[in-house]
Amino acid sequence: MSKLRVAIIGNGGICRACHVEHYVEDDRAEVVAFCDIIEERAVELRDKYFPEAAVYTDYKELLKDESIDAVDICTPNYLHSIIAVDAFRAGKHVLCEKPDAVDVTEVLKMKNAADEAGKVLMVIRNNRFATASEYAKKFVEDGRMGEIYCGRCGWQRRRGIPGKGGWFTTKAQSGGGPLIDLGVHMIDLAVWLMGNPTPVAVSANTYTKFADNETSDSENSKFGDANNQGTFDVEDLAMGMIRFDNGAVLQIEFSWASNIKEENRFVELRGTKAGLKWADNSVEFFTEEDGQLLDIAPRGKMETDGHKKNIRNFIDVLTEGAEPVFKPSQGVDMIKILCAIYESAEKGIEVLL
Amino acid sequence: MSKLRVAIIGNGGICRACHVEHYVEDDRAEVVAFCDIIEERAVELRDKYFPEAAVYTDYKELLKDESIDAVDICTPNYLHSIIAVDAFRAGKHVLCEKPDAVDVTEVLKMKNAADEAGKVLMVIRNNRFATASEYAKKFVEDGRMGEIYCGRCGWQRRRGIPGKGGWFTTKAQSGGGPLIDLGVHMIDLAVWLMGNPTPVAVSANTYTKFADNETSDSENSKFGDANNQGTFDVEDLAMGMIRFDNGAVLQIEFSWASNIKEENRFVELRGTKAGLKWADNSVEFFTEEDGQLLDIAPRGKMETDGHKKNIRNFIDVLTEGAEPVFKPSQGVDMIKILCAIYESAEKGIEVLL
Amino acid sequence: MSKLRVAIIGNGGICRACHVEHYVEDDRAEVVAFCDIIEERAVELRDKYFPEAAVYTDYKELLKDESIDAVDICTPNYLHSIIAVDAFRAGKHVLCEKPDAVDVTEVLKMKNAADEAGKVLMVIRNNRFATASEYAKKFVEDGRMGEIYCGRCGWQRRRGIPGKGGWFTTKAQSGGGPLIDLGVHMIDLAVWLMGNPTPVAVSANTYTKFADNETSDSENSKFGDANNQGTFDVEDLAMGMIRFDNGAVLQIEFSWASNIKEENRFVELRGTKAGLKWADNSVEFFTEEDGQLLDIAPRGKMETDGHKKNIRNFIDVLTEGAEPVFKPSQGVDMIKILCAIYESAEKGIEVLL
Amino acid sequence: MSKLRVAIIGNGGICRACHVEHYVEDDRAEVVAFCDIIEERAVELRDKYFPEAAVYTDYKELLKDESIDAVDICTPNYLHSIIAVDAFRAGKHVLCEKPDAVDVTEVLKMKNAADEAGKVLMVIRNNRFATASEYAKKFVEDGRMGEIYCGRCGWQRRRGIPGKGGWFTTKAQSGGGPLIDLGVHMIDLAVWLMGNPTPVAVSANTYTKFADNETSDSENSKFGDANNQGTFDVEDLAMGMIRFDNGAVLQIEFSWASNIKEENRFVELRGTKAGLKWADNSVEFFTEEDGQLLDIAPRGKMETDGHKKNIRNFIDVLTEGAEPVFKPSQGVDMIKILCAIYESAEKGIEVLL
Repeated sequence: MSKLRVAIIGNGGICRACHVEHYVEDDRAEVVAFCDIIEERAVELRDKYFPEAAVYTDYKELLKDESIDAVDICTPNYLHSIIAVDAFRAGKHVLCEKPDAVDVTEVLKMKNAADEAGKVLMVIRNNRFATASEYAKKFVEDGRMGEIYCGRCGWQRRRGIPGKGGWFTTKAQSGGGPLIDLGVHMIDLAVWLMGNPTPVAVSANTYTKFADNETSDSENSKFGDANNQGTFDVEDLAMGMIRFDNGAVLQIEFSWASNIKEENRFVELRGTKAGLKWADNSVEFFTEEDGQLLDIAPRGKMETDGHKKNIRNFIDVLTEGAEPVFKPSQGVDMIKILCAIYESAEKGIEVLL
Repeated sequence: MSKLRVAIIGNGGICRACHVEHYVEDDRAEVVAFCDIIEERAVELRDKYFPEAAVYTDYKELLKDESIDAVDICTPNYLHSIIAVDAFRAGKHVLCEKPDAVDVTEVLKMKNAADEAGKVLMVIRNNRFATASEYAKKFVEDGRMGEIYCGRCGWQRRRGIPGKGGWFTTKAQSGGGPLIDLGVHMIDLAVWLMGNPTPVAVSANTYTKFADNETSDSENSKFGDANNQGTFDVEDLAMGMIRFDNGAVLQIEFSWASNIKEENRFVELRGTKAGLKWADNSVEFFTEEDGQLLDIAPRGKMETDGHKKNIRNFIDVLTEGAEPVFKPSQGVDMIKILCAIYESAEKGIEVLL
Repeated sequence: MSKLRVAIIGNGGICRACHVEHYVEDDRAEVVAFCDIIEERAVELRDKYFPEAAVYTDYKELLKDESIDAVDICTPNYLHSIIAVDAFRAGKHVLCEKPDAVDVTEVLKMKNAADEAGKVLMVIRNNRFATASEYAKKFVEDGRMGEIYCGRCGWQRRRGIPGKGGWFTTKAQSGGGPLIDLGVHMIDLAVWLMGNPTPVAVSANTYTKFADNETSDSENSKFGDANNQGTFDVEDLAMGMIRFDNGAVLQIEFSWASNIKEENRFVELRGTKAGLKWADNSVEFFTEEDGQLLDIAPRGKMETDGHKKNIRNFIDVLTEGAEPVFKPSQGVDMIKILCAIYESAEKGIEVLL
Repeated sequence: MSKLRVAIIGNGGICRACHVEHYVEDDRAEVVAFCDIIEERAVELRDKYFPEAAVYTDYKELLKDESIDAVDICTPNYLHSIIAVDAFRAGKHVLCEKPDAVDVTEVLKMKNAADEAGKVLMVIRNNRFATASEYAKKFVEDGRMGEIYCGRCGWQRRRGIPGKGGWFTTKAQSGGGPLIDLGVHMIDLAVWLMGNPTPVAVSANTYTKFADNETSDSENSKFGDANNQGTFDVEDLAMGMIRFDNGAVLQIEFSWASNIKEENRFVELRGTKAGLKWADNSVEFFTEEDGQLLDIAPRGKMETDGHKKNIRNFIDVLTEGAEPVFKPSQGVDMIKILCAIYESAEKGIEVLL
């Protein structure tokens, strides 16, 4: 059988660290084209991993190659939806790094283009593939939680602002602070475990309190250069609550810096038969067996990097008709939630979706 | 100097356990009258503690005694405001058990009557007088927290429904479930530590999931008899968020039963200079000193029962012109919050105050 | 069937709080005699619980009553073995409060007298009957721990010296400090869960560092009056290690006062298939299932007072031939361990048993 | 001023990862010679870091160069003392990787040779230079602990055997299991914080229970290759107690695999004025201030790699007469302790030093 022919558009850090090697490991696919506006990035990866592949600097040229089945988009955020729409129009399937898009209009364009083309759109949701997440999902799907009716999620840091003054803290480049950087991971995990109910309202507020704090920069700056002369116009803490159509509510809190004991990221869900707490890639269940209250926690090796399995799922979908772990409507809901949180913070009132 | 002459109206459990003996211990006051519709209750306390005191079964008769300076109201909740209003009209000061009143109309009547009479109204806020709370309050007032801009509070139980089917779970008698029973304690503590900002909006939901759960009754039933044939028409979990006029938000969660690891009650506050966590009558601060992040936690003996100090504060106010720890406007805000939480849950939308 | 006829010798605090009512609740036994050197104590209990019972002030007179089947000894510690030996010679079964005896000679006399008389000797081991302990024991006996080869136990307090200067801190009256007061509970629980291996050596040290510390007295003083002019000649911390004949070792630490975070009492055991941690009447297991590491913790209501079940076991043994949870040889081993710890501390070297 | 002329003998992993670059960073020293039996290792480091340096394959040749002031030994363990003795005889100062030597005879030879030559001997103790350790040491030296009279230390893993069947689990190559691998770190940290009292006795036992456990191998295998056909003749858990000349005792527990909740490494010390707990490179103090029990914990960035500061201290000593953090007698005591633990385990009895 012929292999799935994939092109990777955007050959920077995330492509190198988390994408390209997973195609090498999977016999069912091959990368046939690399594309980056900085040509040597594309050449370097081509030479190292797939010497037969073509190299492009203009993704529109690449999309003209009719032998390409799918594109994997690893560009800066604001290009995700633009390239995806063009790819669907050229008849390709799309795998795309998160976040899905920078606003609701864009994410809807992306989903509609996929629907019209009848092609697969998957956005990376690597946290769903961590071992602890898979345990939690199976527990939920086996019916052991009963009905999940409320919960909390968050990623809180005491001091961990990535690159103060750099692109992370500049709204025009990042779209926002810890809500965009950290929130998207934990909200997605929570909503997915809840069975993807539809969000209907958001009430929240955001704060910027550590822009001038001298102790607030941190090792997290490795993800983006700091800039002493730069901008800090994003929040450093977001707190709020999401309502869903099934009556469930989810409290959220995300911070790059706040005066708490220590960094932690978590999803807590309350179900009628059991509850769960996912925390830093481990998971614990609070349940009943035979009328006896019982806690259960798997403690084996917990894989934390989900990109490999996420990319394998994309290939499974395209080559074997497997069920995609991510559906485009979930991406639309996620972007709606994020945008509504900022809107609610600005207006000081709950926002209906 | 003559002593402060106090009458206690309502001589049931809370009067016996937490009120009458504190007047015995304080030389500046004496109880000169007891009143209960069950006369022997009044007689029993009179004989034991203040043999000279009068006994009444009708509080209106009692209020005619012009020598009485103040009344201490320990009746069922729905009578608090009714008796308080009559007492103010009769020219008495009032100390009253919580909750302040059963709805916003009533709590406003109570406050207005106090204002018109020019008399002191204090409602019991015993948690403010716990040692850990006093530490926290001093830390805040010394400016060591900086600006407090958001937080969380809660009292969560895995299984702890008081008297299933009894008055606790019957809305007509209790006014509500864990929000009324537990929430009032922790919300008051949080708001007081935040400096009593004015609440402006509430978004919340409530759930009843454990009415039929066989493992959900508990030792907490000692506070009210269970009744197998009784009613369960209150929530067992309330979750939501309160907005204040200064932009602060406070997440809340209260449950009598939910699938969590273990019971805990807490107030977490995030300030610009430090954060704090009050948990089960201990408190820990997360702060900076000389550019060094530092946690500090007092660990000495923590008094948890605040009634003694609360009653002493009432006497201090009346005999020495001390500052009252509680102000009537705080009671109005509290009742507004509680009512708005139920309204928001019912309507599925944020409620403006 | 006629009831078991029991006499209680020593009618002070522990008899009132933890013994006499459990005979009222059990139809198979009755208390037919009370004995105390302070006659009114005996009379009071007789009048309240068993009005038909006889009252004695001299236990030797009581032992002459041939209709008595068993005696329950609740006297001060140094009398336990003396009265037990006399009771066996008079043909009675014996239930006795802990500690078994004050030294090895005495505990052996007690055991030998029981053996010669062919009567049952049980010493109270109430912690074995706590719910968490029963879970742990069942887990061990079901083979789920595999071989238990080492562990730790302790009861540590930050500040909790009972009655400084009173009998607790006076060696002639108490026999020792936290090792005697707290250690006997946790060591027994650990050794019993380990399957009662025979102790063969002890290495330990003891310290007295808080006799003059002003913050070191505590609410624990309710168990014995403090005395400012009194004696403090016992340890406030004991630390060491016990070796058993099967190669297992058990680390121990007991303190009334030491600079630790907070009070905790615990038994940790390491087995080849699983480990367990018993802490403050809860228990958690660390195990494997199907090659997956897993933690399991029962979280239901945990009964902590074991006296009721302990006394019921004594009655079961005498009326139904049940297996006694306690065997006299276990008491001998316990007293050997405690004495060896003090000897090792004094000599600064390991002591062989 | 001329620079300190250093030669590094043994140019494998630890030299590359933790030694050579720290000489580049420090202006006061330079590496003038590399030596390894595999010449290309030496050449590679020379070319990369100190192109002027000489390269040797025989350390005895290197020692003939009289211009060399000091050698830094990074060879396999059994060569440490042999090379050090030769270096002292050649008039060099010595910095040496841990463990100091493989037995007591060897460590004494090493110390004696240093004494006779009048040269400096420092063995790496990188944990002492971690930020949390420095906090703890300063707290102790400021007298804030009072007298330290007992404690515990350990490094426990649930599953973490390095390279099963490889050199780590082969006694002839490693000298032992987790006691040698992990114990040396935590025992040194504990004893150093205690003020280096002299050990006088050791009682311990060791166990091998996970040699055949399928889940027991782990990511820790990266430190040494596993070998399915290899040997496993070392312990996987060591537990015991060390006595010191000042009456202090220290409980120890080290495991590569055991059924505990999760990996943890720690030093707990009890002092008369305060206690401390060092855990995973953080530290917390339990103390009193003004009669108030108080916990204090620095929470800033905690450097965990101490090699840089350790090597700087060596240079400080040689160029500026600074106080060495490590003294040779401490190394002798450490090796005595480790050897005595194995001896005590073998004999089943306490061993006097």
